[in-house]
Amino acid sequence: MNGVLELELQLPAAGSREMRRRLHEQLRQAILAGRLAPGVQLPASRALADQLGLSRNTVMAVYDMLLGEGCLVARPGAGTFVAPAASRPAGGETIRAAPAVTHNLRPGRPDATRFPFDIWGRLTGRALRRYSRDPAVYREPCGHPALREAIAGHLSFARAIACAPADVVVTVGAQQAFDLVIRALTPPERRVVVVENPGYPAARAAFAAAGADVRAVPVDAEGLVVEALPPDAALICVTPSQFPTGVTLSPRRRQALLAFAAAHDAVIVEDDYGGEFRFDGPPLDTLRMLDRDERVVYVGTFSQSLLPALRIGFVVAPGRFRAALTEARAHSDWHGPAIEHATLADFIGEGHLARHVRRMRGVYAERRAVLLRALARDGAGLLDPVAPASGLHLAARLAAGVDVAAVIARAARSGVAVEDFAAFTAGDAPAPGLALGYGQIEAGRIDEAVAILAEAIRASTSRP
Amino acid sequence: MNGVLELELQLPAAGSREMRRRLHEQLRQAILAGRLAPGVQLPASRALADQLGLSRNTVMAVYDMLLGEGCLVARPGAGTFVAPAASRPAGGETIRAAPAVTHNLRPGRPDATRFPFDIWGRLTGRALRRYSRDPAVYREPCGHPALREAIAGHLSFARAIACAPADVVVTVGAQQAFDLVIRALTPPERRVVVVENPGYPAARAAFAAAGADVRAVPVDAEGLVVEALPPDAALICVTPSQFPTGVTLSPRRRQALLAFAAAHDAVIVEDDYGGEFRFDGPPLDTLRMLDRDERVVYVGTFSQSLLPALRIGFVVAPGRFRAALTEARAHSDWHGPAIEHATLADFIGEGHLARHVRRMRGVYAERRAVLLRALARDGAGLLDPVAPASGLHLAARLAAGVDVAAVIARAARSGVAVEDFAAFTAGDAPAPGLALGYGQIEAGRIDEAVAILAEAIRASTSRP
Repeated sequence: MNGVLELELQLPAAGSREMRRRLHEQLRQAILAGRLAPGVQLPASRALADQLGLSRNTVMAVYDMLLGEGCLVARPGAGTFVAPAASRPAGGETIRAAPAVTHNLRPGRPDATRFPFDIWGRLTGRALRRYSRDPAVYREPCGHPALREAIAGHLSFARAIACAPADVVVTVGAQQAFDLVIRALTPPERRVVVVENPGYPAARAAFAAAGADVRAVPVDAEGLVVEALPPDAALICVTPSQFPTGVTLSPRRRQALLAFAAAHDAVIVEDDYGGEFRFDGPPLDTLRMLDRDERVVYVGTFSQSLLPALRIGFVVAPGRFRAALTEARAHSDWHGPAIEHATLADFIGEGHLARHVRRMRGVYAERRAVLLRALARDGAGLLDPVAPASGLHLAARLAAGVDVAAVIARAARSGVAVEDFAAFTAGDAPAPGLALGYGQIEAGRIDEAVAILAEAIRASTSRP
Repeated sequence: MNGVLELELQLPAAGSREMRRRLHEQLRQAILAGRLAPGVQLPASRALADQLGLSRNTVMAVYDMLLGEGCLVARPGAGTFVAPAASRPAGGETIRAAPAVTHNLRPGRPDATRFPFDIWGRLTGRALRRYSRDPAVYREPCGHPALREAIAGHLSFARAIACAPADVVVTVGAQQAFDLVIRALTPPERRVVVVENPGYPAARAAFAAAGADVRAVPVDAEGLVVEALPPDAALICVTPSQFPTGVTLSPRRRQALLAFAAAHDAVIVEDDYGGEFRFDGPPLDTLRMLDRDERVVYVGTFSQSLLPALRIGFVVAPGRFRAALTEARAHSDWHGPAIEHATLADFIGEGHLARHVRRMRGVYAERRAVLLRALARDGAGLLDPVAPASGLHLAARLAAGVDVAAVIARAARSGVAVEDFAAFTAGDAPAPGLALGYGQIEAGRIDEAVAILAEAIRASTSRP
């Protein structure tokens, strides 16, 4: 598949500097708008240079800029590829060069505009003053003691997880948690790791980068199909609030998963992504709560509940894993930033986290209701949503024969950003679908976004 | 070697909770004061429990607390060890439980009390307000664009390194730089990595944790002995301002090292630790400056020049490595904290970094002069310093027959903290010596510290 040829790059006769600027801009826009889909391999720089009549240096410089911006990834020995959606820049300042996104339905991001910046700023100032009076040298790889204590308290309260501060290892978001878990808990010779299909590409990538033999196991209406687990699985990474489908891991499957882990001496990584935001019924029990056997490593993050920019997540690990995880963190980046850790500890301790989550649950519940209503009305027969029980996203099926890439490109031209469901799947292309998030769109813009999307689907449907 | 037996643990008849508290406190103090030296293996929990007449659970709980605090490290399959000095808590709040350190001569830490916290606080507030108005979603694994630009500008000015923002990958301190470099730039089947002996234990540990075959190559008065490099070295990690000896890599050796790398297709990791703080003569040329062949990856950190708590470092990499490093960062922890990156970008951009380094160079130069003078006077015949040309530390030899552990323990009882030079060496025990840092001691306390140290040495010297 050569995505570049489909792009109709328009390069004027111009100096090489201007040429480079244009090529960079056009490729970048194509990637950000989804016209060049994640995973597409780019032509070798020499081939593209020949094709466009440019010098190879110009093409290499442009690839380099795009690599630097996270739009492309290079896999040594394989080539240059469009980065997974999760690792590409999106929204805000960095996207200004691309067509303006007026209706952002991309999944995976919370609403950052409602974060209580004033409170955070005040607490940061206080933590900084405290630190300046006594510049303690915190070098604990498992995190600032006050933050570990605050997280343990928060979890017992908000997620009914009984844990002590010593059980908590603070990480740089969930991403570092995946990296530490694979490096610390699986010996190199036994690295069969199960991820969900569809699932979160960045977790999969972290495992693969650490040399794991990653197996994608399907998800159905009850979540991960435990019956399909390979018997040699050493690590099983599961989202009980499934990403990106939004389905819930059923109680039956939870028990089966724990029994599987016990029988096969496997470790379960419970990625509680979106677990704070549940809309129908009481909060889900965590696997960690049900674990009687020191099998479950719980991964949480403040990227969803607070702000992705904080880069703070955590692992709650059984005692037998704690030392190895702490050591892996020490080797990986030693320890976290003391002042930010102290700020977050105060933020949680003073109840601001709980208050913010409570408030945002209401905000997201409204958006979800509006989105489901709009899909039922304007999307009827075009987009069939899987109503999610939790999280900030849903999956929606398109009819067979719809050209997903064309839908995404058309919607993007009208300012609506969505993602191809296929970006979250492994192996064969799944039934066509979209992943829709409501973390970054105001309720009042959702109707219009769905109308635009419906129009784009109608225009992209091949009629027999 | 059973360090615990030498400790004379004093445990009263008491409830298990109190017993646990006492055991924890005594072990912790022993580790922080250096009585239990880095690398010492602790007895198995069962053995220590039997020996002390405690339950094994009590001992395991204490080990766990010490692991959590970074005082111990567990090596799966090998046992539990006293953590390297570099990864243990030191100074400030965390050390209060141990005997008070009144004269801190530990190496490896700058003076945090002189950091301009007021300016940093103001710039943080500004970055936060800017971000709150437009919560841009920066997810560039190579760092915030403004920070990369600021670092590139700073380096050209302060270290005469010609580089563009695209050459810079921001990291979580130097530690993450080592981890990314080993993971991204050496294929698993070719991981012979050279470190210096003596050298920085945390870099060595990062390479070993990534599965490298780490070879320690000696350092002499001209720095790394290039003639002793193994021909199959894939990565050579070198500190031109050598840590912890303070010697400088000579121009002759620099050329030889670059020639070796070219001849053997090796990559040089230039860890410019302490390179900003040079006292005799002009700043050292960097290897990066001399590199004509895309062989040198330059690693820098703001932990020494500003504040370890920032957790921000960077890599300046040749174009051919950049994509792999960026991808490794994405897999490892995705990206850094946008607000802190923006704050540091402003801090550098407004000249505060350059001003702070200039000011601290004067402060450290004075301390160094006072320390060398005191060693020449009170330490004559006892402690023979290697006068360092740069950095915030020096190495000092003790006479043969001096019991280094006893010196450290005696000095600690009088409030003077120093480190065993052996903690930075690999293989056979070197000639006895101490590593002394002047980052955390005021000039006015140095004379007293050296007098205490001299007395401790006299008292610990075996007379034939």
